Amino acid sequence: MTITIEDVLAARYATEEMKDIWSTRGKIISERRFWIEVMKAQRDSGADIPEEAIQDYLAVVEEVNLDSINQREKVTRHDVKARIEEFCELAGHQYIHLGMTSRDLTDNVEQMQILSSLELIQARFLSLMVLLAEKADEHRDLVITGRTHMQAAQATTVGKRLATFGDEMLYAYAALDDLICRYPLRGMKGAIGTSQDMLDVLGGNGASLEQLEGGLIQFLGFDETFISVGQVYPRSLDYDVMSTLALLAAGPSNLATTLRLMSGSSLATEGFAPGQVGSSAMPHKMNPRTCERINGLNKILHGQVDMISRLSGDQWYEGDVSCSVVRRVGLPSAFFAIDGLVESAFDVLSKIGFYPIMIEQELAYFLPFLSTTAFLMAATRSGGERETFHEVIKEHATAVEVLRRDGQATPLDLIPRLARDQRFPLGAEEMMAIMEKVRTNTGNAGYQVDSFCSMIEDISRQHPDRVGYKGASII
Amino acid sequence: MTITIEDVLAARYATEEMKDIWSTRGKIISERRFWIEVMKAQRDSGADIPEEAIQDYLAVVEEVNLDSINQREKVTRHDVKARIEEFCELAGHQYIHLGMTSRDLTDNVEQMQILSSLELIQARFLSLMVLLAEKADEHRDLVITGRTHMQAAQATTVGKRLATFGDEMLYAYAALDDLICRYPLRGMKGAIGTSQDMLDVLGGNGASLEQLEGGLIQFLGFDETFISVGQVYPRSLDYDVMSTLALLAAGPSNLATTLRLMSGSSLATEGFAPGQVGSSAMPHKMNPRTCERINGLNKILHGQVDMISRLSGDQWYEGDVSCSVVRRVGLPSAFFAIDGLVESAFDVLSKIGFYPIMIEQELAYFLPFLSTTAFLMAATRSGGERETFHEVIKEHATAVEVLRRDGQATPLDLIPRLARDQRFPLGAEEMMAIMEKVRTNTGNAGYQVDSFCSMIEDISRQHPDRVGYKGASII
Amino acid sequence: MTITIEDVLAARYATEEMKDIWSTRGKIISERRFWIEVMKAQRDSGADIPEEAIQDYLAVVEEVNLDSINQREKVTRHDVKARIEEFCELAGHQYIHLGMTSRDLTDNVEQMQILSSLELIQARFLSLMVLLAEKADEHRDLVITGRTHMQAAQATTVGKRLATFGDEMLYAYAALDDLICRYPLRGMKGAIGTSQDMLDVLGGNGASLEQLEGGLIQFLGFDETFISVGQVYPRSLDYDVMSTLALLAAGPSNLATTLRLMSGSSLATEGFAPGQVGSSAMPHKMNPRTCERINGLNKILHGQVDMISRLSGDQWYEGDVSCSVVRRVGLPSAFFAIDGLVESAFDVLSKIGFYPIMIEQELAYFLPFLSTTAFLMAATRSGGERETFHEVIKEHATAVEVLRRDGQATPLDLIPRLARDQRFPLGAEEMMAIMEKVRTNTGNAGYQVDSFCSMIEDISRQHPDRVGYKGASII
Amino acid sequence: MTITIEDVLAARYATEEMKDIWSTRGKIISERRFWIEVMKAQRDSGADIPEEAIQDYLAVVEEVNLDSINQREKVTRHDVKARIEEFCELAGHQYIHLGMTSRDLTDNVEQMQILSSLELIQARFLSLMVLLAEKADEHRDLVITGRTHMQAAQATTVGKRLATFGDEMLYAYAALDDLICRYPLRGMKGAIGTSQDMLDVLGGNGASLEQLEGGLIQFLGFDETFISVGQVYPRSLDYDVMSTLALLAAGPSNLATTLRLMSGSSLATEGFAPGQVGSSAMPHKMNPRTCERINGLNKILHGQVDMISRLSGDQWYEGDVSCSVVRRVGLPSAFFAIDGLVESAFDVLSKIGFYPIMIEQELAYFLPFLSTTAFLMAATRSGGERETFHEVIKEHATAVEVLRRDGQATPLDLIPRLARDQRFPLGAEEMMAIMEKVRTNTGNAGYQVDSFCSMIEDISRQHPDRVGYKGASII
Repeated sequence: MTITIEDVLAARYATEEMKDIWSTRGKIISERRFWIEVMKAQRDSGADIPEEAIQDYLAVVEEVNLDSINQREKVTRHDVKARIEEFCELAGHQYIHLGMTSRDLTDNVEQMQILSSLELIQARFLSLMVLLAEKADEHRDLVITGRTHMQAAQATTVGKRLATFGDEMLYAYAALDDLICRYPLRGMKGAIGTSQDMLDVLGGNGASLEQLEGGLIQFLGFDETFISVGQVYPRSLDYDVMSTLALLAAGPSNLATTLRLMSGSSLATEGFAPGQVGSSAMPHKMNPRTCERINGLNKILHGQVDMISRLSGDQWYEGDVSCSVVRRVGLPSAFFAIDGLVESAFDVLSKIGFYPIMIEQELAYFLPFLSTTAFLMAATRSGGERETFHEVIKEHATAVEVLRRDGQATPLDLIPRLARDQRFPLGAEEMMAIMEKVRTNTGNAGYQVDSFCSMIEDISRQHPDRVGYKGASII
Repeated sequence: MTITIEDVLAARYATEEMKDIWSTRGKIISERRFWIEVMKAQRDSGADIPEEAIQDYLAVVEEVNLDSINQREKVTRHDVKARIEEFCELAGHQYIHLGMTSRDLTDNVEQMQILSSLELIQARFLSLMVLLAEKADEHRDLVITGRTHMQAAQATTVGKRLATFGDEMLYAYAALDDLICRYPLRGMKGAIGTSQDMLDVLGGNGASLEQLEGGLIQFLGFDETFISVGQVYPRSLDYDVMSTLALLAAGPSNLATTLRLMSGSSLATEGFAPGQVGSSAMPHKMNPRTCERINGLNKILHGQVDMISRLSGDQWYEGDVSCSVVRRVGLPSAFFAIDGLVESAFDVLSKIGFYPIMIEQELAYFLPFLSTTAFLMAATRSGGERETFHEVIKEHATAVEVLRRDGQATPLDLIPRLARDQRFPLGAEEMMAIMEKVRTNTGNAGYQVDSFCSMIEDISRQHPDRVGYKGASII
Repeated sequence: MTITIEDVLAARYATEEMKDIWSTRGKIISERRFWIEVMKAQRDSGADIPEEAIQDYLAVVEEVNLDSINQREKVTRHDVKARIEEFCELAGHQYIHLGMTSRDLTDNVEQMQILSSLELIQARFLSLMVLLAEKADEHRDLVITGRTHMQAAQATTVGKRLATFGDEMLYAYAALDDLICRYPLRGMKGAIGTSQDMLDVLGGNGASLEQLEGGLIQFLGFDETFISVGQVYPRSLDYDVMSTLALLAAGPSNLATTLRLMSGSSLATEGFAPGQVGSSAMPHKMNPRTCERINGLNKILHGQVDMISRLSGDQWYEGDVSCSVVRRVGLPSAFFAIDGLVESAFDVLSKIGFYPIMIEQELAYFLPFLSTTAFLMAATRSGGERETFHEVIKEHATAVEVLRRDGQATPLDLIPRLARDQRFPLGAEEMMAIMEKVRTNTGNAGYQVDSFCSMIEDISRQHPDRVGYKGASII
Repeated sequence: MTITIEDVLAARYATEEMKDIWSTRGKIISERRFWIEVMKAQRDSGADIPEEAIQDYLAVVEEVNLDSINQREKVTRHDVKARIEEFCELAGHQYIHLGMTSRDLTDNVEQMQILSSLELIQARFLSLMVLLAEKADEHRDLVITGRTHMQAAQATTVGKRLATFGDEMLYAYAALDDLICRYPLRGMKGAIGTSQDMLDVLGGNGASLEQLEGGLIQFLGFDETFISVGQVYPRSLDYDVMSTLALLAAGPSNLATTLRLMSGSSLATEGFAPGQVGSSAMPHKMNPRTCERINGLNKILHGQVDMISRLSGDQWYEGDVSCSVVRRVGLPSAFFAIDGLVESAFDVLSKIGFYPIMIEQELAYFLPFLSTTAFLMAATRSGGERETFHEVIKEHATAVEVLRRDGQATPLDLIPRLARDQRFPLGAEEMMAIMEKVRTNTGNAGYQVDSFCSMIEDISRQHPDRVGYKGASII
């Protein structure tokens, strides 16, 4: 008895739609669709294939009996042959795979799987950005302490912070769009890329071949074929796909990282289901587990890119199968990983929460520090040397910070210190008034949120078919 | 006394133009150009900056005195400040860097360096493809034994083999084009991305800021700015740049790999300078060292991508400098690596040679094997069971191959064996005639070469400015 | 209905023994064994646990009913709890998991899985080296053209070539040995590493805890525990394991690479089963598919190392689960990959064949070139300027090589050229005699083979339990 | 004029000692030392080399004139030849490089550089652990809120937290030790590994060769040579070195990560020099820049490992130079990176500071949550159902946490809630008393710190030569 091990990413994180594309059954159906499109293109290029046969094949595309195919494979000892026989017997005809070699089937069908997966992700990624835009808009004006180097820096807004992750996602979305547009099909190039066998079928007619490939890519949703390949399409194409998936992961992963940090300071939560408990020993804990998973999936994707990258630029002559096991492992699992990552991001974004009172407490606490630039400008406006004022502020701010960390001061102590300093023109009340303005002084933050949201709206309007996905429920 | 170590990639492989972009001097000049463009944009947005000042700054852009700047840095202890002071003193004005924070300078200027480097590579890569197209065209009809799994498979042509590498390069070129088109500038976003400081300079006017950024990207050759960023632009953008460079490396690296294989069978050479010697002990050796280097540089590039990929999706809040050293190391050295790789490919392609007689010997030797499909078709045409004929051919081909490897047969022994076999209808002469046809039966190979060449011609015509580079001389 | 996707590496390449370790059932059994060892250690440290209970637990270790456990999990909504309940009900006692937190179970049990897997691989890797040593010994004196840069360089032997791959494997084996020796168990460190809960169970007694951990590691086959950890053991430990697996892959992968090259020149075969056919269209082809797979699995391993490496040095405070999904994917699949690679290497080595006549033909052809150093030494011995002779040889060798590639010379033409040259003292016959010596002049090759074989013999004698594995049959 | 680009890692982060090893001058000196040791070993093996000559070579080892060598290289067009001539002319003899090929020099000398670098790092890494142990001991009993998933979990101590990073470093140190012990020299194996040329020099005497190599490794500080190699030693050895460097980086990088987090909550600082300012606009900021750099250098190291890993298992026949550029880039820069990382860690650890009052505030705040397990145990001891009590605690803890995040409760509100609940037996005062105990209840933390410190002490006592380094001053 052999032990069965399930693919972890598929079993725990990927959606049914993505698994369907990469399942054995899904691949067989794709192959059958491909054979049918080739038949149609051959017929259109003059081959003698009756319409009825095409209809008969079409009728049985989804009748996939894996046991029967396995039985045949035991006899033929050739997997493609077994699948040809099965499909032909189901349809009652012998018109598929004419002039094709195995690679004409496998490479092209894998590309169909890749393209379908990319389009699936594209739609979901746009839907995810729509959800993010909603959240950014909702928290457009919630002022929060911005942090660089983990230290309180200047005021920003929760909405703008979200929009920043969103803008990174928008960039990746554009890259995905570009990829899908330029992604070429290998085409009917035969065993070493010369199309010798298909040309024989077409009576040596190059024009017919071009027409056949042209029809084929149109049917399959591609825009291009390669001009010249060897046995296989260049594996750098796979690398391009993979690195684009990793690019898509960056924005959600940055969001997850910052949410984990915020949750540690009780400023935000990725959601906490009613009845959920942090751990049996520590029930109060609200662990950002889904965000942690997103960061983990991001790392997985990069490992998978690394795997596939090792095929790039390493082809011997017209090709071999040293790439086979690598692609068999790397390609589907990368799609499962990005799929699971997008699902996880849906989960986080749909339940995300921010704690305004905690956020306001933190802001109020750091406000004097966040206001030093404004103090400097006001002081300078009142006349006097900017450099001197800067020196004075620096002196007191540093001193207060050092005391603060020893529990002997809070940022607010900066105000009386500056007010008392003869070299500095502003009084305490004046500074308190400035601080009130700084509290909401988030520059262009609101405008940026609006711009992001309207950009998402535009794209959604152009692609209504890609919008509306809400995420599946996840573990 | 401190020890100086030169950057290996820069010193040995990169061109002066690329080093110029990334040198200290080059970076300072880029900064100055950036400051001037900001001034212009600020003036156009209503700031009070006299034209004369701009001209005075412009006049001294290239007067870079590193010693003087270092002296200033020792005093100010701030590198950006030192460079501001130096430039202002040279120009005799104080108009630069208004409303800017350090990141407004550094991130944007690094992006200028990146974009310039990408455009430099783009032009050279196209020039390289032009050279490759010439070679493909030159050897368009030189028939050669195609190999899959390193084994003789079917006939192809040297020109088609080159066109295959070229087509992979064309794909990468398209990806680079897409990248350059979508590559956005960070813009004047200030210390945490809210543009607070620049808005203050512009009187809080968001429209003016938009105009300023709009003018800026136009001046600098960008099409876009980010909508919303933190302290820095998202580092996944660097990942996108890096993985595109690695994509560019794939085609030349595949070419190099196959040339190394061919050179081991004396079918091709990457060039052998008059007087060059393989090694002192073995002077006959014509080592494909430059091809080996190309493969090495390809690996280096992937290591650098890996480095930068680790920044992707790992940003804390509005940012910090944990990315700094990684980018400082990874970005320039990746451009030096791809630059050196492109130069090496120029060197190889300009000296590449094929040995027609060796190629013909190999082809003649394997021809009977390469012709089995044609024998099968001819036999079938003469009536009789295809399956039986296939079985007969398989039986003899395998037997001959096994004997051949023991030195007891050559592929030619297949002919009399088949001729003698009662189950097989073709005679020896008939088969010899078929073999003569197979010798030149390279399917669509010629057409593919022509398509590739005309594609390159089209692009060259559209971008005459990117064509004509010939490669520098390399070690 | 949910779609099930099998793990590709497990399904196609890994052995039953390795899958058993990482299967759900295998993990549950490991957990039960761990609980039992903890009970024993607790009893030895003074806890009140009856021997009968331990025996009752032991009796049901292998009674794994996954359905029942899943049912329990649906009720408890906690996987560890469900498995505790199931085991306790089977045994009829409640003594397991006392003072333990989930991590005390999961981290330690995963380490048991890792250690078992390492030991499994260790034994098989030694068995593989034994097989390799046999082959090296068998072909100890088969002289072959050594190649550097793919060019004929000097004479070596097939046995020595194999011993070189073997020596690389020996080095990796030593590294694996070191790893297994230093590999420490996390131990009973509790939720954040202070062992607080287990100390409570043991009455706060640090000495008892030390004794408990000491007993535990002895039972489990470890030599060490960590002194101080957080919630989890440091993930750099996983990196160490992974990079050692990748190290193990290097030797077999180098062997596979060179076999692929040799098979392209008909010098060797990875084996060709009776009735096997290269491809349906090209039946003569003897494709080195298993070697290609080995190279692919090597790439996969490096991608998996890359994945796990991203956890290294990235822990926040006492830990979280951002590593969880990465380890869940990376660890088992790396063991499946190395397992499959070792199996593939068994397959190749047990069927490997060399073609002496082809090897001799190649050697005879290149012999004049391989003899130039010997000519030089002989000439110098006869008096005269070494430098001059070197120059003369270089001149002719280069000329012959250039002509040769144009089909106008063979290496043998070097002899009359040198004989005719007035500056060179040796005659043609003299040189022919030298060439005969060079033909078998493989320096220390034989001695190296013997040294390698006796090293393997020594290790085998020390570890008879690790020797004797023959490989499973593979697809 | 050519543009010079400095190596970034060397210029900014590496120490003089490390740069010395990898500088051109350093390499030339290593080569000369190697030649001298070979001469000695040859003399001991019976070759006729006068002691005086050896002394004369020794006397000029450090007289390195790069200009003169470059002049010679322009004439000879061979770098090794040029360096032979220079050294011979300086010494006035012609005894070096006898029977050696270039690889006998370069591969072995690079291994000397690698071994020296490893030993340099080994000593510094131990010194660093000594410093860390001091700090762990100093803060042995400073209780702090332990965090998992960034959430307050249980009490631990600052000393234990440091010891945890230290224990990870100890593990890596052991791995480095193992590596240094097993690291074998390539040895005098000649052009393709058969030692043909050296055997000729030694009269074909295998025993003499063995003696020569034996003497050589002893002189050079190695324990082993490879038995059988090709042109080069297997590049997986470089991979082993590189991944061990990356392993060393993990502990310091984890320390840096957690310090960055702690500094964001004002619990710790990496040091803040008097007069240092966070940023010109925000002078209060105490940015953990050096910790950020450590994290960056960790990523760089992994990128460099990735680069070198691509050479592993990819050797063709007896070797070529496709590895050359990769190793030329990857090896020195990895040593510069780990060197800079260790220096940065010295800087951080020597200036590290913790803020006890902030730490105590945080602990006091979360204490009620950290005490729930203790409440449960006390309640159970007083009789009653453990499960019920657990349910009650969970109910209130979750409720308080939810309110807390909305600013409507603090963890302390848990006490009156539990006291009021009829189902729960403990009173408020009782719980307050328990909390006081929990405050210092850090289990085995102190013991772990002591164990770590005494382990470091032991190693230091065994290797007094590796202790005492204090770190150079860094930028």
